[in-house]
Amino acid sequence: LSKKRTIQPQDFDIQFGRFSKGPKNCLTDVTGVKVGHTTLNSGKGPLKVGHGPVRTGVTAILPREDIWQNKVAAGSYVMNGNGEASGLMWIQESGLIETPIALTNTLCVANVQNGIIKWMLEKNPNLGITDDSFSPVVMECDDSTLNDLQGQHVSAEHTLLALKNASTDEFLQGAVGAGTGMISYQLKGGIGSSSRIVSINNENYTIAVLLNSNHGHRHTLQIAGRPVGSQLKTPLPERYKDGSIVVVVATDAPVDSRQLSRIAKRAMLGVARTGGISYHSSGDLAIAFTTANAIPHRPDEKSALLNHKILSDFYLDNLFEAASDACEEALIKSLLNAETVIGRDDMAAYALPHEELLKILSRKN
Amino acid sequence: LSKKRTIQPQDFDIQFGRFSKGPKNCLTDVTGVKVGHTTLNSGKGPLKVGHGPVRTGVTAILPREDIWQNKVAAGSYVMNGNGEASGLMWIQESGLIETPIALTNTLCVANVQNGIIKWMLEKNPNLGITDDSFSPVVMECDDSTLNDLQGQHVSAEHTLLALKNASTDEFLQGAVGAGTGMISYQLKGGIGSSSRIVSINNENYTIAVLLNSNHGHRHTLQIAGRPVGSQLKTPLPERYKDGSIVVVVATDAPVDSRQLSRIAKRAMLGVARTGGISYHSSGDLAIAFTTANAIPHRPDEKSALLNHKILSDFYLDNLFEAASDACEEALIKSLLNAETVIGRDDMAAYALPHEELLKILSRKN
Amino acid sequence: LSKKRTIQPQDFDIQFGRFSKGPKNCLTDVTGVKVGHTTLNSGKGPLKVGHGPVRTGVTAILPREDIWQNKVAAGSYVMNGNGEASGLMWIQESGLIETPIALTNTLCVANVQNGIIKWMLEKNPNLGITDDSFSPVVMECDDSTLNDLQGQHVSAEHTLLALKNASTDEFLQGAVGAGTGMISYQLKGGIGSSSRIVSINNENYTIAVLLNSNHGHRHTLQIAGRPVGSQLKTPLPERYKDGSIVVVVATDAPVDSRQLSRIAKRAMLGVARTGGISYHSSGDLAIAFTTANAIPHRPDEKSALLNHKILSDFYLDNLFEAASDACEEALIKSLLNAETVIGRDDMAAYALPHEELLKILSRKN
Amino acid sequence: LSKKRTIQPQDFDIQFGRFSKGPKNCLTDVTGVKVGHTTLNSGKGPLKVGHGPVRTGVTAILPREDIWQNKVAAGSYVMNGNGEASGLMWIQESGLIETPIALTNTLCVANVQNGIIKWMLEKNPNLGITDDSFSPVVMECDDSTLNDLQGQHVSAEHTLLALKNASTDEFLQGAVGAGTGMISYQLKGGIGSSSRIVSINNENYTIAVLLNSNHGHRHTLQIAGRPVGSQLKTPLPERYKDGSIVVVVATDAPVDSRQLSRIAKRAMLGVARTGGISYHSSGDLAIAFTTANAIPHRPDEKSALLNHKILSDFYLDNLFEAASDACEEALIKSLLNAETVIGRDDMAAYALPHEELLKILSRKN
Repeated sequence: LSKKRTIQPQDFDIQFGRFSKGPKNCLTDVTGVKVGHTTLNSGKGPLKVGHGPVRTGVTAILPREDIWQNKVAAGSYVMNGNGEASGLMWIQESGLIETPIALTNTLCVANVQNGIIKWMLEKNPNLGITDDSFSPVVMECDDSTLNDLQGQHVSAEHTLLALKNASTDEFLQGAVGAGTGMISYQLKGGIGSSSRIVSINNENYTIAVLLNSNHGHRHTLQIAGRPVGSQLKTPLPERYKDGSIVVVVATDAPVDSRQLSRIAKRAMLGVARTGGISYHSSGDLAIAFTTANAIPHRPDEKSALLNHKILSDFYLDNLFEAASDACEEALIKSLLNAETVIGRDDMAAYALPHEELLKILSRKN
Repeated sequence: LSKKRTIQPQDFDIQFGRFSKGPKNCLTDVTGVKVGHTTLNSGKGPLKVGHGPVRTGVTAILPREDIWQNKVAAGSYVMNGNGEASGLMWIQESGLIETPIALTNTLCVANVQNGIIKWMLEKNPNLGITDDSFSPVVMECDDSTLNDLQGQHVSAEHTLLALKNASTDEFLQGAVGAGTGMISYQLKGGIGSSSRIVSINNENYTIAVLLNSNHGHRHTLQIAGRPVGSQLKTPLPERYKDGSIVVVVATDAPVDSRQLSRIAKRAMLGVARTGGISYHSSGDLAIAFTTANAIPHRPDEKSALLNHKILSDFYLDNLFEAASDACEEALIKSLLNAETVIGRDDMAAYALPHEELLKILSRKN
Repeated sequence: LSKKRTIQPQDFDIQFGRFSKGPKNCLTDVTGVKVGHTTLNSGKGPLKVGHGPVRTGVTAILPREDIWQNKVAAGSYVMNGNGEASGLMWIQESGLIETPIALTNTLCVANVQNGIIKWMLEKNPNLGITDDSFSPVVMECDDSTLNDLQGQHVSAEHTLLALKNASTDEFLQGAVGAGTGMISYQLKGGIGSSSRIVSINNENYTIAVLLNSNHGHRHTLQIAGRPVGSQLKTPLPERYKDGSIVVVVATDAPVDSRQLSRIAKRAMLGVARTGGISYHSSGDLAIAFTTANAIPHRPDEKSALLNHKILSDFYLDNLFEAASDACEEALIKSLLNAETVIGRDDMAAYALPHEELLKILSRKN
Repeated sequence: LSKKRTIQPQDFDIQFGRFSKGPKNCLTDVTGVKVGHTTLNSGKGPLKVGHGPVRTGVTAILPREDIWQNKVAAGSYVMNGNGEASGLMWIQESGLIETPIALTNTLCVANVQNGIIKWMLEKNPNLGITDDSFSPVVMECDDSTLNDLQGQHVSAEHTLLALKNASTDEFLQGAVGAGTGMISYQLKGGIGSSSRIVSINNENYTIAVLLNSNHGHRHTLQIAGRPVGSQLKTPLPERYKDGSIVVVVATDAPVDSRQLSRIAKRAMLGVARTGGISYHSSGDLAIAFTTANAIPHRPDEKSALLNHKILSDFYLDNLFEAASDACEEALIKSLLNAETVIGRDDMAAYALPHEELLKILSRKN
């Protein structure tokens, strides 16, 4: 899938925090987690509603193949609830996720839900017949500055395709999948991902972030603490809309839903360190899941009890810190890996220029 | 629309609380609020997935015609978050509703969202182009015990139809619209509605409830305090699935979003008085809105300030009590007005038998 | 301690729900849980601020003796947050309780906290030196209608006494301890308690409630579904203040903090079935804890992992239903067991008259 | 009160954000808001429990003198709920604050509550007699690393003193009042404050922060984006305990409780920009209030309606950004203004060394 080398922060001699990274430095460093994109990028020139230009897509995350039968413990944190996150109410109540997770644009949430429904029914033909019903988990950002949003170009089939292409490999970042039409800090944004390995009481755990960046004003952007936003000369996009930043945290650490909600909160601290203010019109939220402690759809008939090993709260701090570091890095990687995109009405969202960034980082301040 | 006379509690000489009712004793007693159903009821015999039998529908609630330009203040309360309530995160953050509200079945939430999207784009063609994007408000209950749920029979067009047929008249209750396939307390449930007039400091305000009842075990059912469920001889449906109860509260009292969330909580107390336990697998939630204090989409250029009159918290108690009474009554009306429905595989959900109810109510206990 | 026989619902031929009761039908049916009261009842006649009359007290609940070293998993639910519940923020974050719990009046929360602090420091002399600091859990109701509230008559020593007298025996109910000066449904209220045994997958678990009732208007009172409040001839107290109802749920079922918060919510449904509206000025909340799955203050050095058995959510329903039944019964027991109290300025809060209740219950309705 | 010149960020040629500061650059720039400290600093050498050394105090914030009669709208945000914040439940329910606010140490919360109770009863002698009861707002941080915490040295009288000394002047920052014994980023922390002026639709509003910093590990400390913590040579304190950071935001902008909770959330983003991770054992929370739109204790008899002007949500962004900037600056000012304190057992918490900081800030990175 990934033909292009991912740009990494170390290419700019910057780092985020003190923990080491996973081998792929992305969400699929958590064993078993799969990611797939469908990217829709076609047409150019003036907006013709329903006909493009199309700059959008869907990114699917599969915590495990048998997600309905073996659910993952999950938590969430809503920093600013502008937008839609389908399935969120059930995550909050049940502390678990039992469907794939998908990211897309605001007006395609419904189509993408229908794609996940198809996937779920193919795998579990008794759902809503002899078995329970379910609600897909879909998060969105508004890409209407570049994309023909009203056209609702992401279909159920595009979603199925992303799910079927999902793999445990490294995946493309930047202006791909759900990130195709995103703008972050008034630069081209999109998908970014990073991972950390933390050692807790002599055990190593992986914690990783995948996000879709579509938020922020240029002037607050900081990279590794440097006030890059106020120094960049890159033109602002001609149109401005507040956007969102949606974050998925995955880990293999044995934590429960309460702890995962706390971890999701810390991811957002990494966003804050890049200058995120969580403006009124931005939908800024994180969900977090763990592949440890699978939750059976129906417990074994012999017992109503789940045998779980749960990390003591006293050992969470490294996971908290690593979640914020990985999220900060994922956000900067979304900018570093996105290329300039010309969208509807020929409007450009410019990529963060690498050479200019190097110069700013080398300044005394 | 409503050709059939609505069965009322007073037909059974029972009443709920001390407040008087509005003239229609339903949600449309709140001036300007419109309700419309699309009922899908076709086929019989064994389930043929995708082909029926179909026992489902959609019920649309329009707080005001110009809901995008003049939003309604809103609140919510999740008693048990099993299921999906799209748009909820934004209600919680913004304290407002800016789209129609629709009720439907679990796997048609996406289609119904697309119906509301069509309605919104027809009325506001610049959404997602020069204007903001948006997320529809859709709540669901699982009607798969009676209905071919996997068939996803409620379409965007059915939703548009319900919205276009919505009126300020009295509307049908029981097994209609989203209530067509619902089962409550193992009796036929569905749509129920009731209203109250409360006097506060010499001003009259209306508060009303519309709900879709699809929850509960027979043995806990109480009607006007009487243990009806344990005394009824009506057969239980052959299949049992826990369901949900979703509630919409409307008022014209000048309250804000914080107060509306408190009112939504009190509606659920009325559910409790009918014996609702909010079992694990039930999605029990309420949203509440007021038609007072419209919130302009963009405030007047001359001022960033909204001039709102807000009821002092010290005057809320009557609204709290009336919300719980109206909700209790709406739930019982959903049972009283639903007729027996034979669903997929010829399974019956029997209506609450009126004569037997009269007998039980006349017993000493 | 308990010299007086507790009045039970079966004395009136009423029952709440379908589960059997524990042997003592109170909170101490949960093995290891201790309860103790200090009752302050002195003086009569007009209020002399600081000098009485005194109608107040403190009720202490000790989930386990070694509560700091072996904490209990805990959850909470705030139905209406009028009033103070110290320690609540930490329960919500950590999902545990690590100090005794005490109930008292509104202006003695601080003194009672100091009593718990003394108890904690006696048992754990390194707290706040080499060990962590802590925050006591204290819930309050306003007894100022009967009591010299400004006098702050409950001291740290009274709290220590209640903790030291706490036992696993049956304890007095009604106008005792923190319940001494309480008024509920404009009748004499106070401490009530009840328990249930539930069978889950062939295992028996106990779930029990202790509450302090100090809330409600007479006209909404229902007992076993009957509209007792509107039929009673007992005079209303001359003064009226909205009060509160604070609830403690204990269980030995192996549930986690998320599940305990859900259980706490269901307890409040039992309050609703007695006619509770949760008026604006009422502080209505529940905390719930389990004695299963003790949480070590510091985990064993050999492992950062807690080995917990957790009940699958699919098996919670009986606990939900039993929590609501026990809470409904506890509330009615608080009324049945309270005797008329004459408070400051010779104002009477009359007990629920047993004979009149029997007559009302025997009516056809 | 303030004899010492406050150290300001501009002394180090650093700034936080783009907004201008108020004339005093502290909380009392919001008209009418008063702040007062009582500082307790006595004894030295080894800990003698109950006898010192004493390094603690109380800081009182008075939103307005007539706070009971004219309450302030308020919101809150709990980033990590380790610790106690009395009165929080009522802020969350009612959306207002009606008592003074005080900051102190963990085991003196009760004494400080009693101090506020005395103040309230002096001003409003009918509380808990003919008028309602109330719950004071007290937030705490654990100063036991430097202070004899078990000694509970802050009394009700110390609190009354702080309230009586409270003024609208500039106030001391650093190791004063509740900040006397605080340690932040393993440097001497304590009280810090900053303010911003924001222009919204041609109106100027003030928003200001006062905080007590007692949290964090050295290695994550950033100042104006620079990794100061990892470069400082200042010795770490010999003992380490995780602490807390409690934040009070005041504004005169006409916002409501929902909006104030959103503002409180943004303040915490400023903490994140200094490197705050919100570790497990840290109590990190903010409350926010506005002096606009006073809420009468009892509304005028002629009307149950409050006439409020409320800022449209579309105009909140500058307040969000300014709250985060002021909080970041307040935190750094707490470090810049604190002097080295030698506490119990002769342990030192070293001040941030100004000269070394200047050198680090002048490095290329």
